[in-house]
Amino acid sequence: MTNDELVAGLQRLSDSASFNRWAGFEVLAADPGRVELRMVQKEDGKQYAGFLHAGLIGALIDTACGFAAYTQVGAVLASHFSVSCMAPAVGEAFYCKGQVVKSGKRQVFARAELFAEDKDGRRKLVATGETILMVA
Amino acid sequence: MTNDELVAGLQRLSDSASFNRWAGFEVLAADPGRVELRMVQKEDGKQYAGFLHAGLIGALIDTACGFAAYTQVGAVLASHFSVSCMAPAVGEAFYCKGQVVKSGKRQVFARAELFAEDKDGRRKLVATGETILMVA
Amino acid sequence: MTNDELVAGLQRLSDSASFNRWAGFEVLAADPGRVELRMVQKEDGKQYAGFLHAGLIGALIDTACGFAAYTQVGAVLASHFSVSCMAPAVGEAFYCKGQVVKSGKRQVFARAELFAEDKDGRRKLVATGETILMVA
Amino acid sequence: MTNDELVAGLQRLSDSASFNRWAGFEVLAADPGRVELRMVQKEDGKQYAGFLHAGLIGALIDTACGFAAYTQVGAVLASHFSVSCMAPAVGEAFYCKGQVVKSGKRQVFARAELFAEDKDGRRKLVATGETILMVA
Repeated sequence: MTNDELVAGLQRLSDSASFNRWAGFEVLAADPGRVELRMVQKEDGKQYAGFLHAGLIGALIDTACGFAAYTQVGAVLASHFSVSCMAPAVGEAFYCKGQVVKSGKRQVFARAELFAEDKDGRRKLVATGETILMVA
Repeated sequence: MTNDELVAGLQRLSDSASFNRWAGFEVLAADPGRVELRMVQKEDGKQYAGFLHAGLIGALIDTACGFAAYTQVGAVLASHFSVSCMAPAVGEAFYCKGQVVKSGKRQVFARAELFAEDKDGRRKLVATGETILMVA
Repeated sequence: MTNDELVAGLQRLSDSASFNRWAGFEVLAADPGRVELRMVQKEDGKQYAGFLHAGLIGALIDTACGFAAYTQVGAVLASHFSVSCMAPAVGEAFYCKGQVVKSGKRQVFARAELFAEDKDGRRKLVATGETILMVA
Repeated sequence: MTNDELVAGLQRLSDSASFNRWAGFEVLAADPGRVELRMVQKEDGKQYAGFLHAGLIGALIDTACGFAAYTQVGAVLASHFSVSCMAPAVGEAFYCKGQVVKSGKRQVFARAELFAEDKDGRRKLVATGETILMVA
């Protein structure tokens, strides 16, 4: 499978989830064990101060980790995810890189970094996260 | 402040966040250090298998913990949250109880339990979570 | 099996680990899904300020969770544990309660609370933790 | 301050903690925001199957993160740490690299990787961890 096919397959997987369609997750790039996502800030995606809502921060990190795992082991289900919020998540768009740290027979450990993009496309790290996924 | 006023104040806080309005978070009950939320499953809130999306699982847990903290210390910002997914999050609605475990001058530790409700209102634990919130 | 036999069996399991013998973990009580441990503060167990070292905080929480799981599913291996440190861990002894939150075929989710005991036996919550254990 | 002075200062800090002296933590290298530790496997440091005890896994990760933070902001106290156990921690010695991910006025976020060393010095990743540290 070429990387283009991997990206197209992950985009179809993303679009099969109603939440991902609503959120507008775009799969930018993928390699075995790695994936890059992007989402334009939606008007309906904010917390009370106007920053990106923690639910979408978690969704991007969980999805980037899950897709990175998917490229190596196929279908997975998250059993744990954690998010560290390091800076206010303010941006025109958000970019998330996920990677597999360790892939086993039963479990996959992955992590991700979430960056806010300003209107000039400059990226700033705003959160990191880790997931544990069970092989389905 | 009566508990009714606390509930009304938290509902206004929730409704001031565009994501919470979209998701339809309802504040059912509140005491100092405790809060109960509910959300009817939305068509746009699902992952690829039709379960509640991890982003909404995280959003409910983060919000329940944040609101529980708010009742004791006012405005807070999450610096960390973690979610353990214990069973498929399938339900007509979801109910989330958050409580403060320890409230300090600079940090509040809170935790929450998320239950799926079937069409008869029976509840089943599907996830738990923990947050660390910085006092704003 | 009576609870006395459960306690005796867990104490033998604990004593089969060289670290636990060194640390002096005592199994106080056990039920299916629940266990209570105690450890007298050792001179060699401190961090630089004289508080209980994070390694021993983690060890008590991990052991209480693992033993609680063991009472329900037998041998387990931790794949994840997290610890929230809520107050300085200063005490004559430390008491830790672990309990299973959800036990599945492949994974067990457990959590624990750690209390410091002063010289009059009064207990104060100093840390909480969560673990995910794989059934061996 | 040269890196040699940084290493010497961190080794003194480590040796001021009775647990670290008992465990035999050696500071191998340090830069601002980064530190490397090593510990020879002790007979008294094992869990029931003979692997490195989770308490020492946590202690190495917590210490590597705390020392990495110390190089940038001085004294810190851990408020949260989490550990993902990816492979059996079996080795002649253990090597741990810690680094600051984000350093703020009130909090520092750090992460660490723990490797087992076999008798030929070959390293294998066995655990990763994350910490949140409060600036003292």
